[in-house]
Amino acid sequence: MVESPVIRVGVIGAGNVGRAFVELLADESRSIALIDAATAHLEVVGVAVRDASKPHPGVAPGLLRDDVESLLKEDLDILVEVAGGVEPTRHYVEFALQRGVSVVTANKALMAACGTELAQLAHANAADLFYEAAVGGAVPILRALRTSLAGERVLRVMGIVNGTTNFILSKMTDEGSDYAEALAEAQALGYAEADPSADVEAFDAAAKVQVLSSLAFGTALVGEEISREGISNIRSIDVEFARRSGYVIKLLGVAERVGEHGISRRAHPAMVPFAHPLASVHGAMNAVFVEGEKSGPLMWLGPGAGGEPTATAVLGDVLDAARNRVSRRHDVPFSVDDRLFAVDEGDVTSIFYLSIDVLDRPGVLAAVAGVFGHHRVSIQSMEQSGVGDEARLSFLTHHARHRDVRATIDELSTLESVDSIGACLRVIDGGN
Amino acid sequence: MVESPVIRVGVIGAGNVGRAFVELLADESRSIALIDAATAHLEVVGVAVRDASKPHPGVAPGLLRDDVESLLKEDLDILVEVAGGVEPTRHYVEFALQRGVSVVTANKALMAACGTELAQLAHANAADLFYEAAVGGAVPILRALRTSLAGERVLRVMGIVNGTTNFILSKMTDEGSDYAEALAEAQALGYAEADPSADVEAFDAAAKVQVLSSLAFGTALVGEEISREGISNIRSIDVEFARRSGYVIKLLGVAERVGEHGISRRAHPAMVPFAHPLASVHGAMNAVFVEGEKSGPLMWLGPGAGGEPTATAVLGDVLDAARNRVSRRHDVPFSVDDRLFAVDEGDVTSIFYLSIDVLDRPGVLAAVAGVFGHHRVSIQSMEQSGVGDEARLSFLTHHARHRDVRATIDELSTLESVDSIGACLRVIDGGN
Repeated sequence: MVESPVIRVGVIGAGNVGRAFVELLADESRSIALIDAATAHLEVVGVAVRDASKPHPGVAPGLLRDDVESLLKEDLDILVEVAGGVEPTRHYVEFALQRGVSVVTANKALMAACGTELAQLAHANAADLFYEAAVGGAVPILRALRTSLAGERVLRVMGIVNGTTNFILSKMTDEGSDYAEALAEAQALGYAEADPSADVEAFDAAAKVQVLSSLAFGTALVGEEISREGISNIRSIDVEFARRSGYVIKLLGVAERVGEHGISRRAHPAMVPFAHPLASVHGAMNAVFVEGEKSGPLMWLGPGAGGEPTATAVLGDVLDAARNRVSRRHDVPFSVDDRLFAVDEGDVTSIFYLSIDVLDRPGVLAAVAGVFGHHRVSIQSMEQSGVGDEARLSFLTHHARHRDVRATIDELSTLESVDSIGACLRVIDGGN
Repeated sequence: MVESPVIRVGVIGAGNVGRAFVELLADESRSIALIDAATAHLEVVGVAVRDASKPHPGVAPGLLRDDVESLLKEDLDILVEVAGGVEPTRHYVEFALQRGVSVVTANKALMAACGTELAQLAHANAADLFYEAAVGGAVPILRALRTSLAGERVLRVMGIVNGTTNFILSKMTDEGSDYAEALAEAQALGYAEADPSADVEAFDAAAKVQVLSSLAFGTALVGEEISREGISNIRSIDVEFARRSGYVIKLLGVAERVGEHGISRRAHPAMVPFAHPLASVHGAMNAVFVEGEKSGPLMWLGPGAGGEPTATAVLGDVLDAARNRVSRRHDVPFSVDDRLFAVDEGDVTSIFYLSIDVLDRPGVLAAVAGVFGHHRVSIQSMEQSGVGDEARLSFLTHHARHRDVRATIDELSTLESVDSIGACLRVIDGGN
């Protein structure tokens, strides 16, 4: 039997993911399977942390290093970056790639900020750059886009890629909590930060849309901003209306083809029909739904966060990088298709749900309906609830351009009889 | 720019899948993406069919061949086998592998019959053997088990891997059809064969369990038979009881670890809780649910059949094989773990649902309950429905060994007051 080569792995970061990853590699019961899968012995040569004098449970003290630079100057084959943040992480990753060291990262912010350059740098230095854990935690969607669907023409990707907001919306749906209660519970459980805006204002989902879109379509990882709407203005009454109408509200990250070369990339809450596979993704689970031209609808589901689940995604990438290393090849992270352009979100059509608080006076509905008509937004159904100062109109439109719906809202907000405009949600078609 | 090498592809079979595959390769709009993904030009050199003089829409007449042997003797890089059947297909595949030609097949029967030998033959000749389309149609579960989860310890795989039975059970659940009606509709729509036994008696699901288990655990592809129960004795009244109790009935293919090295492999209908991701897999969709030790629960969902969806899975394999060819390497299809053994199904425990038609006489319940007690099967709940000659008892047990439940059924069927024994279904725990 030929002796397996040794692949030297450096790790930056010993938080939940880093620690779980190091533990996976140290697990005796996995060692044979890992050597088989890597076609090599994986050896962790060092774990860079902020303060190596502090105890880091799960990591052998001899591995801990204060000095990232000295770790990077070792003869590494693979660098695992699970420290997070864009700077100085970017610098470390560039340093490694320039020396031909393959990089595995879980850092969606880094990839969204400079993924295209990093991908090109990796390719130029015959190194791999893998980042499965950056989207969907343990859900192996990125490798599937790179490999299984490499020959398929993807039409649309829709993901529930933020566990915090899915937890909040699930609470509102299943228990009738209002937004503030559900957020407070998410914070108490550690699912949401004290400042929850990265999650609830969809910044996190938007960064993941960038990563998904680059692999699904070949869009550059930087460039136009992703259109972004959060969940903080969704009220119990919207959730209840959705339920009665056969929908559940989910925050979706969406990237889709519009015409031959147009791409729409956005993150926003939407009403998803009960029969759609995304409707049954509960709590902190993540899922990505992909519509291929020939494959039809496909979905991947799994835990979107957590040290151990995320570490399994990192490990999958490390095994790929190790195998490539042994056979002296590398994968091309993704190719940018220069023909693609970002479509104007105003031109993208959808069915919309719109709720409006009005004063319950004669003629209000006629005035409101007139505004819809003026902007050529056709109404599919309307429901009035409440009376007097608490009256509320809920509309479902036919397919309409986002631009026209926005103009409708702008004009509605100038009407004296309109008290306030509530949520405006896209409605997803069909089931599976 | 370096010119891409040419990878020569031979195809056996021009049915729905073969035709769709050839069309995908001929699609001009995909050609750049395919060259990128394959790192080569893919060239179809011939398509072997039974009668090349007949028209085969979608396949250029110049490609058609009557003579498989002559196609195999061409200088092929990859053989795509989408003809089906075990013989003479096995002979063709062996012939190709012996010459170092990589093989991509959609043939679960072939893999279940002789997959281990074929895998070893491929490895010995430095060729790839890929068979993504053999399980779950377009669902890319096999590559995920080979790559993303290569370092993970899989605890259990449960799949809805037969679209025909899922269609029948969905009809029974959603529309209250009885089994005969639902089967007749499946036959009328072409989902079920005139002789439906391969599907409804779970032979097809069992073959897929063998394939899934080999990749998830390293069990040999041949060997002990898979424990197998069909759906033909499921009645509307069982479906209705399940619904009232919060479950839906699905035919599952299951492979799971029992202890350190025991593996249970089986295919049978089961009651799946509404909140479980498998419960919302409707109609002809397929899904595979994987529980990893560290990854937690993961699920893959997509169309389980159809020419075009299945062809995308074949294409994904061909791209992998082409890339490997270009870099002169091959993947090891799977390694057999010799420590594994098949557990005795009698020892595997589950919650069971059991329905019994009885004569509605005093003392019947006591007699029946006595039989359960005698075999140490503890009853969780009981419901009586109907009266007189139509009376029926439905039981949910606590966790019990299959052996004990079988012995209970055997003894119950000897009781004078028991008319007949209906369905006996395992009940799946928990949700996601």
